[in-house]
Amino acid sequence: MRIAVDAMGGDLGPRATVEGVAHALSLLPANSAVLHGPSHVLDAQLDALPKSLRFTRSRLQVSHADTVVHEADRPSQLLRMPEETSLHRCLMSLARDEVSAAISGGSTGALMVLARRYIGMSAGLERPAISCAVPTEGGGRCYLLDLGANVDSSPEMLVQFAHMGAAMASVVDGVARPRVALLNVGVEPSKGAHRVRQAHVRLSAVPYRSFEYTGFVEGGGMFAGDVDVVVCDGDVGNAVLKSSEGLARMLGKRLQHRFEDGIWTRIVSFMARPALTRFHHELDPVRYNGASFLGLAKTVVKSHGSADARGFSFAVQRAFSEAEERLPQRLASRLLDV
Amino acid sequence: MRIAVDAMGGDLGPRATVEGVAHALSLLPANSAVLHGPSHVLDAQLDALPKSLRFTRSRLQVSHADTVVHEADRPSQLLRMPEETSLHRCLMSLARDEVSAAISGGSTGALMVLARRYIGMSAGLERPAISCAVPTEGGGRCYLLDLGANVDSSPEMLVQFAHMGAAMASVVDGVARPRVALLNVGVEPSKGAHRVRQAHVRLSAVPYRSFEYTGFVEGGGMFAGDVDVVVCDGDVGNAVLKSSEGLARMLGKRLQHRFEDGIWTRIVSFMARPALTRFHHELDPVRYNGASFLGLAKTVVKSHGSADARGFSFAVQRAFSEAEERLPQRLASRLLDV
Repeated sequence: MRIAVDAMGGDLGPRATVEGVAHALSLLPANSAVLHGPSHVLDAQLDALPKSLRFTRSRLQVSHADTVVHEADRPSQLLRMPEETSLHRCLMSLARDEVSAAISGGSTGALMVLARRYIGMSAGLERPAISCAVPTEGGGRCYLLDLGANVDSSPEMLVQFAHMGAAMASVVDGVARPRVALLNVGVEPSKGAHRVRQAHVRLSAVPYRSFEYTGFVEGGGMFAGDVDVVVCDGDVGNAVLKSSEGLARMLGKRLQHRFEDGIWTRIVSFMARPALTRFHHELDPVRYNGASFLGLAKTVVKSHGSADARGFSFAVQRAFSEAEERLPQRLASRLLDV
Repeated sequence: MRIAVDAMGGDLGPRATVEGVAHALSLLPANSAVLHGPSHVLDAQLDALPKSLRFTRSRLQVSHADTVVHEADRPSQLLRMPEETSLHRCLMSLARDEVSAAISGGSTGALMVLARRYIGMSAGLERPAISCAVPTEGGGRCYLLDLGANVDSSPEMLVQFAHMGAAMASVVDGVARPRVALLNVGVEPSKGAHRVRQAHVRLSAVPYRSFEYTGFVEGGGMFAGDVDVVVCDGDVGNAVLKSSEGLARMLGKRLQHRFEDGIWTRIVSFMARPALTRFHHELDPVRYNGASFLGLAKTVVKSHGSADARGFSFAVQRAFSEAEERLPQRLASRLLDV
């Protein structure tokens, strides 16, 4: 199985992406990747790979692209750009089925616009949504969407997100009839923003065969494990996801600080290290890196812009597993079966 | 200093509010409170106070109210309701200056509608916003608003929130020129929901004397300590606040679980208890209970609906301190001095 990588996307540039891909390939010996970007830059990165990853090099191919998409490029510009950016070429090779999936850590907006153009949507869907799974109290997980691909979403789009999220929970986690809720400021039907109340009316109007609509849920409900899917506009979901990551990071630092506070706690800390390490592991946003673009006809994964090599490796592994699972095709057939 | 308490608000009812007020008064020997609600219910609760709190009873007065506001009552209904609910009477006594502040753990919408009617707004402001301070990495704090008093906010309202939040950081934390940012899905000017981009244009148009507008910030920026105030619509702020609380609660439980995992970690856990307890303390959403209603002419505090006696006690203490600081008056004069 082969994947196309926009090696120039992401805040840390090709150093993080190239090493990240190599790390993922070191764990997946049957897979390979095509790195898109200026060949002199990427060849230099490949030469600089840590010794322990050099054996993956034969499975890492470079495909030259002259230019890159910048965070500040507007969607309208992107569509008129020459097809020589690393992102354009990465998605075009997926469109031509030369690879099974594409991944980028660059601008979400650019990825979305170009993915819609080259890859296209599954039947009946208007726009892709970004989703990730958050861990819940009982040890399960809950899909949150949209995470920022769409702002100013219409009620109709929120309804589509509900279908897409439910399909994800069914296909990936095997939940027979996922419980789907709308994120709101309160649980009473009279509360909330206009579009949220309108979406509630539509989702309540008919019972769905493929999922159970459970009404409104507040922000805490996501982690409580009461529902399998939480739907909101990208403006809200993005703020929730990024603030949760920021909070987890801050708490991790504070916990460490607490355990460096004086000699006695330092000794205890040494002994407690295995338990603390496991906890840090659970807190680690890197492990949850890689968000799925739902609704597209093929597998496209967005890595966090700030991901380091380890984070990018997780996102690459996710892209391979979604492509192996044939997630877009299974989502599409599930969506037809409402 | 005396406070009016809607003793019937909150999910746990008068048991939590009465004990919470008594607990706060046990720490503040010069203060007193008036409890609004059905007198037979409240008298019974006072009789059932824990022994250690009974000495506060002489400073706890009951003011009979026949009925209560229910979470499902619509704002239009509230304004037509007889003025015999505990919330109506609580706010009316603040309006008549019989007390220095009012507090309720009931419906945010009801509190907002009735507070606007009876207490009124500071000059030049349209609607109150709810704000609370979140802790930041460096040990400081950042004010987040609005937390759910307003949904579908106009750009103009977001600009007013910026002024209100800046005034809060100046008055409460003594920040000379607070850094104020708009919460958004990205930091580029072309990104985000329509109202957020419009508010950005307005806030960027002129430099403000009393605060520095720093542009867009993403969700994680709130905890990073880069800004003093983060402004967003109530739909977003409410989701961020409640999901942060949910996440902190989940992480606290998981940490505990990690330390109960096997005999060796149990022994370590026993020794690590002081550090863990301090950490749990920092995580504890209860300690941050009580959100300020900014923009009202007098002090009104909203306690979390789910707060227990300890949580309600924190909110009561906050109400006393805001009234002592003459926060609404100082905010109003600060707002005139833009």
